[in-house]
Amino acid sequence: MTKLKNQLQSPGSGAPDNLSRRRILIGSAGAMAAVSLLGFSRLGTAEEPKSLPDYAAWKERSALIVHSANTMETQRGAIGSGVITPSDHLFVRNNLPPPPASVTMDPDAWEIRFEGVNNPKTMTVGELKSMGVTTVAAVLQCSGNGRAFFPHGASGTQWSVGAAGCVMWTGVPLRDVIQALGGAVDGARYVTGTGGETLPDGLDPASIMVERSIPTRALDSAMLAWALNDEPLPRTHGGPLRLVVPGYYGVNNVKYVKKIAMTDKQTGAKIQASGYRVRDVGMKGAPDQPSMWEMNVKSWVTAPLQSSQPGRNLIYGVALGGAVGLEAVEVSIDGGKTWKTARFLGPDLGPYAWRPFVLATDLPSGSYRIVSRATDVNGNRQPEGRVDNERGYGHNGWSDHGVTVAVG
Amino acid sequence: MTKLKNQLQSPGSGAPDNLSRRRILIGSAGAMAAVSLLGFSRLGTAEEPKSLPDYAAWKERSALIVHSANTMETQRGAIGSGVITPSDHLFVRNNLPPPPASVTMDPDAWEIRFEGVNNPKTMTVGELKSMGVTTVAAVLQCSGNGRAFFPHGASGTQWSVGAAGCVMWTGVPLRDVIQALGGAVDGARYVTGTGGETLPDGLDPASIMVERSIPTRALDSAMLAWALNDEPLPRTHGGPLRLVVPGYYGVNNVKYVKKIAMTDKQTGAKIQASGYRVRDVGMKGAPDQPSMWEMNVKSWVTAPLQSSQPGRNLIYGVALGGAVGLEAVEVSIDGGKTWKTARFLGPDLGPYAWRPFVLATDLPSGSYRIVSRATDVNGNRQPEGRVDNERGYGHNGWSDHGVTVAVG
Repeated sequence: MTKLKNQLQSPGSGAPDNLSRRRILIGSAGAMAAVSLLGFSRLGTAEEPKSLPDYAAWKERSALIVHSANTMETQRGAIGSGVITPSDHLFVRNNLPPPPASVTMDPDAWEIRFEGVNNPKTMTVGELKSMGVTTVAAVLQCSGNGRAFFPHGASGTQWSVGAAGCVMWTGVPLRDVIQALGGAVDGARYVTGTGGETLPDGLDPASIMVERSIPTRALDSAMLAWALNDEPLPRTHGGPLRLVVPGYYGVNNVKYVKKIAMTDKQTGAKIQASGYRVRDVGMKGAPDQPSMWEMNVKSWVTAPLQSSQPGRNLIYGVALGGAVGLEAVEVSIDGGKTWKTARFLGPDLGPYAWRPFVLATDLPSGSYRIVSRATDVNGNRQPEGRVDNERGYGHNGWSDHGVTVAVG
Repeated sequence: MTKLKNQLQSPGSGAPDNLSRRRILIGSAGAMAAVSLLGFSRLGTAEEPKSLPDYAAWKERSALIVHSANTMETQRGAIGSGVITPSDHLFVRNNLPPPPASVTMDPDAWEIRFEGVNNPKTMTVGELKSMGVTTVAAVLQCSGNGRAFFPHGASGTQWSVGAAGCVMWTGVPLRDVIQALGGAVDGARYVTGTGGETLPDGLDPASIMVERSIPTRALDSAMLAWALNDEPLPRTHGGPLRLVVPGYYGVNNVKYVKKIAMTDKQTGAKIQASGYRVRDVGMKGAPDQPSMWEMNVKSWVTAPLQSSQPGRNLIYGVALGGAVGLEAVEVSIDGGKTWKTARFLGPDLGPYAWRPFVLATDLPSGSYRIVSRATDVNGNRQPEGRVDNERGYGHNGWSDHGVTVAVG
């Protein structure tokens, strides 16, 4: 699987012609000026040579670390202190190359099949849009965010803190659709969503398809989203239609969703059966291990990151409760020996959103280990350490997420 | 004054060289492709030939009506149903051409003078940033938004509904700065802010300078903002530093603010003494007339606008309480004969923000006059009609703001 994933990732998501054309354009003085006029800087540097893949070319290159054509992380310094992550700063993680660009040309025509309901039906996005609408601010975070901090070298993209963002999703509550179709069949315990990616020939579909099952309690927040930050959902992030499950890790938010089934069992697809399972280092994934569903409480500092001036400093960061709201965030400038309660910054967008925080403190010249520690409304507090696990999932230990800042 | 304003507006904000270069770029196939790759369409059409001025060239052209180089309105259809207006969709209204682009090259170096405090001082933006920070969602709206609906032909930019947006401002609370400087001098009744525009030679500064006074109660919300939607405040919107007064009309939000004075009297500048004064049609402005300070309750429909399909429709719009929160919004599809309460959409960002609303309704084939009517938490409800006044300020009558939609 890992080998296949690498194979799928490394050539990019197709469209090499477009990529080449873009490089030529970027290289011409005229287009350089045009890019500069638009306020963007999309040129790679010597240290960060990878280009954005074609399906994500509209992203702000300087805000991102491009790990591969399917994995792009928001720079820690670009996370900022805003309640909403601009779409062009949002991280990207595709499990497969996206479907062709044509899918978002006429988004209302995209079809989705509903099964495991009393009146199974195929509907278009256009029909869904007339059924109802909700807008929810929610953190989108990869299960492996923080994987880079595991010393055993967990395989997979080496995300630091930036496989996360907080965005506005607009769509129809999935529960409303299920109810309109006569409700779930008896015995349904899972919502199973299937992605609309084109699967490569000659491989067992179950070994690569993106199909995920989540417990029916997820219907409290699950939606079928057609807009991101009040704009049509881009293909980069699963447009025309995505199963969005506020409070759940990214992989459950199935992109290009083409089928929703209420099922009594979890799907047997590899991404569910053995993928995204938490197990001890060295073990293989299996269905009896915990699946990456609800997120946990977490926070990290976003500024200052490396150096600062002596005197009064404002320390910024972001914190999330995961699947519930936040109680408090504390900040330490001495690596966790002493803590001060930080202040939340900006409006509270609800339990699934993150909250920027700030702490004003005096920093004489010296070196500081700055860490943050959040507590959710249920009293769950970030641990100091990490819970070692084979694939480096769900890391919310505060120590690894700190920064060392030279002041003076 | 009107003649002068036209004179100041028509040649654009300088930088014709850049404008020409941009036109040439846009005209080349290569740059066209580059623009298309970035997901933007910035070409004027035959109906809408005006280009964006250089200082606003980064804006989404298709979202805007360009009235002049100093006045750009958000298209009604581009207002959307989001809680936050993307910066590149936000309207622009400058009373004078902006200062040179160099002012935002090193924003922390911008200086602002504080007077009328016990310890007068000149501070840099960098110093302000270490004092404290707040982030507030607030509607920015021009006093003349809705002017186009006045039948007497109120002079000034013919704004329809789009001289308004709801954005996130980040900066230091002005009250904190005043307190840090020893507090206001005795007898201070106004906060007077002065803009940093370069004034044309040979004219009486008081006749054209942007200097506005607001009552000290505005300190409940006033801030000195350096960021818009979590990005450095662009020059287009008053960067490096703007006096932002949530709840107050746009003109009070002094751009490129270079001086704040706590004063016992209002400034004698024309923009305050006789400008932005509400008076009967035909009268001249005078200091004893109401000044355009706090905003009033208002709403308008954003979709559908002209036509729709028969059957179930979702009617969208935005509503604001002005200086206080909203109680409710009602929608009528029969021009105000009958009303239904709409539902707010998305998180509540606080009393100064607007709230998108939605109403699901069945629309058989026919023609509909769709109007909306908001009520604030103090029980103030939008009136049906307009209050005629010379310059067409503060229009919040629901009838004029409705739309006629052909269904079928």
